[in-house]
Amino acid sequence: MNYTEEYGLPSQISISEYLFHRLNQLKIWTIFGLPGDFNMPLLDKLYSIPTMRWAGNTNELNAAYAADGYSRLKHLGCLITTFGVGELSAINGVAGSYAEHVGILHIVGMPPTSAQTKQLLLHHTLGNGDYSVFYRIANDIACHTAIINDTDLCADEVDNCIRAAWGYQKPVYLGVPVNQVDIPVDSSRLNNPIDLSILKKTKETDAQVIDLLLKQMYSASKPIIVVDACVRRHDALKETHALCELTNFPVFVTPMGKGTIDESYKNFGGVYSGSLSSPEVREVTDFADFVLFIGAILPEFSTSTFHFGFKKKNCCILFPTSVKIKKATFPDMLLKGTLQSLVDTIEPSKITYKHQAKVDIIAPKMEPSDSNLLRQEWVWNEISHWFKENDIIITETGSSAFGINQTRFPTNTIGINQALWGSVGFALCSCLGALFAVEEKTVVKHNLEIKLRNYNRNIFTENRTILFVGDGAFQLTVQELSTIIRWKLKPYIFIMNNNGYSVDRFLHHRSDASYYDVQPWNYLYLLELFGCTSFETRKIVTVSDFKELLADESFAKPDKIRMIEIMLPQSDVPKTLIARWQAEKELSNKRAGDFSENSSENSSPTIDPHWVKKQYLGPVTPTSSLSTELHSRSQMYL
Amino acid sequence: MNYTEEYGLPSQISISEYLFHRLNQLKIWTIFGLPGDFNMPLLDKLYSIPTMRWAGNTNELNAAYAADGYSRLKHLGCLITTFGVGELSAINGVAGSYAEHVGILHIVGMPPTSAQTKQLLLHHTLGNGDYSVFYRIANDIACHTAIINDTDLCADEVDNCIRAAWGYQKPVYLGVPVNQVDIPVDSSRLNNPIDLSILKKTKETDAQVIDLLLKQMYSASKPIIVVDACVRRHDALKETHALCELTNFPVFVTPMGKGTIDESYKNFGGVYSGSLSSPEVREVTDFADFVLFIGAILPEFSTSTFHFGFKKKNCCILFPTSVKIKKATFPDMLLKGTLQSLVDTIEPSKITYKHQAKVDIIAPKMEPSDSNLLRQEWVWNEISHWFKENDIIITETGSSAFGINQTRFPTNTIGINQALWGSVGFALCSCLGALFAVEEKTVVKHNLEIKLRNYNRNIFTENRTILFVGDGAFQLTVQELSTIIRWKLKPYIFIMNNNGYSVDRFLHHRSDASYYDVQPWNYLYLLELFGCTSFETRKIVTVSDFKELLADESFAKPDKIRMIEIMLPQSDVPKTLIARWQAEKELSNKRAGDFSENSSENSSPTIDPHWVKKQYLGPVTPTSSLSTELHSRSQMYL
Repeated sequence: MNYTEEYGLPSQISISEYLFHRLNQLKIWTIFGLPGDFNMPLLDKLYSIPTMRWAGNTNELNAAYAADGYSRLKHLGCLITTFGVGELSAINGVAGSYAEHVGILHIVGMPPTSAQTKQLLLHHTLGNGDYSVFYRIANDIACHTAIINDTDLCADEVDNCIRAAWGYQKPVYLGVPVNQVDIPVDSSRLNNPIDLSILKKTKETDAQVIDLLLKQMYSASKPIIVVDACVRRHDALKETHALCELTNFPVFVTPMGKGTIDESYKNFGGVYSGSLSSPEVREVTDFADFVLFIGAILPEFSTSTFHFGFKKKNCCILFPTSVKIKKATFPDMLLKGTLQSLVDTIEPSKITYKHQAKVDIIAPKMEPSDSNLLRQEWVWNEISHWFKENDIIITETGSSAFGINQTRFPTNTIGINQALWGSVGFALCSCLGALFAVEEKTVVKHNLEIKLRNYNRNIFTENRTILFVGDGAFQLTVQELSTIIRWKLKPYIFIMNNNGYSVDRFLHHRSDASYYDVQPWNYLYLLELFGCTSFETRKIVTVSDFKELLADESFAKPDKIRMIEIMLPQSDVPKTLIARWQAEKELSNKRAGDFSENSSENSSPTIDPHWVKKQYLGPVTPTSSLSTELHSRSQMYL
Repeated sequence: MNYTEEYGLPSQISISEYLFHRLNQLKIWTIFGLPGDFNMPLLDKLYSIPTMRWAGNTNELNAAYAADGYSRLKHLGCLITTFGVGELSAINGVAGSYAEHVGILHIVGMPPTSAQTKQLLLHHTLGNGDYSVFYRIANDIACHTAIINDTDLCADEVDNCIRAAWGYQKPVYLGVPVNQVDIPVDSSRLNNPIDLSILKKTKETDAQVIDLLLKQMYSASKPIIVVDACVRRHDALKETHALCELTNFPVFVTPMGKGTIDESYKNFGGVYSGSLSSPEVREVTDFADFVLFIGAILPEFSTSTFHFGFKKKNCCILFPTSVKIKKATFPDMLLKGTLQSLVDTIEPSKITYKHQAKVDIIAPKMEPSDSNLLRQEWVWNEISHWFKENDIIITETGSSAFGINQTRFPTNTIGINQALWGSVGFALCSCLGALFAVEEKTVVKHNLEIKLRNYNRNIFTENRTILFVGDGAFQLTVQELSTIIRWKLKPYIFIMNNNGYSVDRFLHHRSDASYYDVQPWNYLYLLELFGCTSFETRKIVTVSDFKELLADESFAKPDKIRMIEIMLPQSDVPKTLIARWQAEKELSNKRAGDFSENSSENSSPTIDPHWVKKQYLGPVTPTSSLSTELHSRSQMYL
């Protein structure tokens, strides 16, 4: 039975139905966004397909973040907003998807074509008759933009948009004027799957590139492989793993690529983050004579402050659509295809490199007693032991993003973070998106005959979705918790409560500045307030609280939503953040010429490293002043 | 004692201190925003001036809305965000200020100049080395943009930015690279007040315009004056009132101008909103042979669907910086000056118009019994009697924005709404901004020696700040309630709970569509959850509940924060919204040529007007099905 028969479609359907059927074919079943004046006729069409569901987010920025989280697991996220107010509210989230290579189809319900032509001064306009301004703005953060207008070509245009978002893993902007929602198109197009290929390889270049790459891989005596985020984005996991096996090279992940390589893999070396890497990692990477960098997210990283500091001469970089070998760039090379060619061609016997035993990267440095209060350093090492296979682990920009790099991920763990764009508030919403995606994977796997859109379904997923978010960050997008509850999704939400924006407090070295403070909330009451009926909440203050939590077997099963408030001292940060501070200090000294001219004391810190060590490392006993501060906070609403 | 002596300033201060001192001189004491990597050195400078305070919002969009609300009372709002993530999160709020003519100084902390020049791939960038993209985007929604770079001219540039935002009542974008925060400037500049004048009038044009205007005002036999929002924005209240007195013409306000004219004024005729006006209003306005439109916010409104439908030939329009008389536009005419010239020149004896008794606009149509459930129609008429002089009344886009137009404002009431831009979620945050502004006016009036930035101060303001917000809209920006609590501000928050996005439900005529639903929250628990210790909450279900509330004298005193949940039937909208629906229906019939071609049933509704009347008007008794629905909702968490 072909698609139109299966869905009982007439020979002609509307372009908006066509659009949603195309998404349905790719199993993109959850659509994110808010209703608005100009997108409602479009939303009505969504409901004609039984598997499709409307997430119904609480605001547009949250919706954009959620679509991003969903896309990181399903290869494409779809966001629908309304003209002007809606699309602009979402724009920071879409820009994040652009920066981080995440495929997003952003559909904007627009005023009728006639109103645009006549420059009518509708609401949601700037009042100056300029209807193109938002489209113009969108151009800067999209790999492709289009507006549905042409009756003959609109179905092709929809396919183009989906193909571009899927293939380039970047946002695409598609405007749908409210009067164009019903343009008729032939439904028979749906009987041919959409062509998702974006580039056609030229054979000659391919051979030349493979030849150049292999030559270096064969001759290197101290080679490494570094795996970045685009390996997962561009669906090249299998090929990457195969290449690692065939070469036997030590393999590292970037912070954004963490979770891409099985961390129990025999050659896994740890998280490589340039000068911020651990001494164990640097011992290998700093002396590499060849680096194969796979799935790089940044077009250049030698100039980045927080990314990598390779010597270019030893480095070959596989980007999503090009390859860079030393100084030469080869365009139109798709990551997955290039890797496959390497795997097909490589002759392992020609490899010079002799396998060496890997170094272990996790070594807990602290053995606090049970009555001790918590410290980031200890918590992040400890939580590693609680992680399980197939976990989805989401970390917020802030101390969690640093802490997570000192954990070890079990097999098939997927990590989600926003290390480049770094928009605070992202994590909670992307957690919602990930939860939808995980649920849909379960539905597919078990052929569950469930209408996904039913709020009262109860689907048990094998994957646990685990969020780490700071108290400050949590406040930015708190209302999206309500959407998680509405859909009866079951994440673990660890609120790392350190009384405000502690990372900034640390990096800017102004622990007294009141702009880092946030209003203290009774976080654990939120679930009930938002209408949740089945949940568990815990407040964790001491080392023994934390140990008990991790030892509790019922806690480990993701059968309800759980919120855990981890009380941490205000002046406590993960080890990796201290490393970043030191690196930034070195860098700012190096750049003294730029910075010192007009800089304030605060923008180029002159802190005694011993002070930092004393302040931010080592165990805390309940008699210290920090513990008083923390106890008074944790008692506040007990 | 001059300014530098008063503040004990050295001869040279940093450009950032200079900026904040300039704002301090204009009594712009509250700065909105969030800290971020690139704005922290700037924020440190803020704290050097004892009166200045940092609001510390919960996210950037909320901060932009709050700055907008503040500016509507104080003529200028200042917003500080960080590069990329921060400024983009705020952009929808800033675009709203652009559309609605609200003066905003948006300061963005940028990466150091050297990083920009070298295209370093810092976080908060798109990862493509393009540092100009956000500045480019800002250009479309600002009347002036600048980046602090030049040591010699930077103080002039700061003055330019403040002048433009103040004078044109539009957003201004000012980028401050983190390494430019300390550029030294002469503090003695501060001893001369900033020149805020934006245009120098040319005398000849002025005389010609005044002459043309007066000729028509003298000869009209059925003249009216319509007052729009820019009268307040451009500080022309006094002149407008004087002109009304001298002419004795009937005077109306637009929905956005509501509150600008004293509604107990003898010639006040009501709210004029074109074809949506009440029959009483249309009786006068439809037959006008001359319209003096003062402080118009839109450059053109004859083409607007929801604004006005004047015949151009009878209309003279005073814009903020120009005058339009029939088809002729006279540029460079400042509103305030033009009005003053009119007032100075007019000879009332030459006026043809004979004063007529005005019609009354409020006539309650419904007399429900005490046990009846509430209806929008009755609630909005009733609440009018509770309003007092000097109230600040803020309404959200949605049913409140329509309902408020059927209330009568007492003397000196100020209305805040976002009728043109219509961004849902605006009202709660602009309420925060208004609360700060009101508090500062009280401080000035009573010479209170209070450091404003102290969280523990307790200032009793004469003005009550009253917010009406729907349950759906409230969810979009809920966290800003936390900032209101943090600063111990004392608004009345009326949550008009009609179970979702009812306005859209009504206008789109799809009462069953689930995308209008929102997750039900236990709204009244929020205050405590966000850490509030002194408050009052009430849930109002019946007519007698509502009458008791309004009769309670202690309730009328703004001595603590109050949250009142008004339970309304889901399918209930204010009368003015039904008028809008009818007008849109007429319009869509007129435009059938455009709309019917490819339109869905839903985009051009074909509803029986009798159905609408039956569904949305008339009293409800607790035995009806509506009441069952409502009761079940209201019992849910009692």
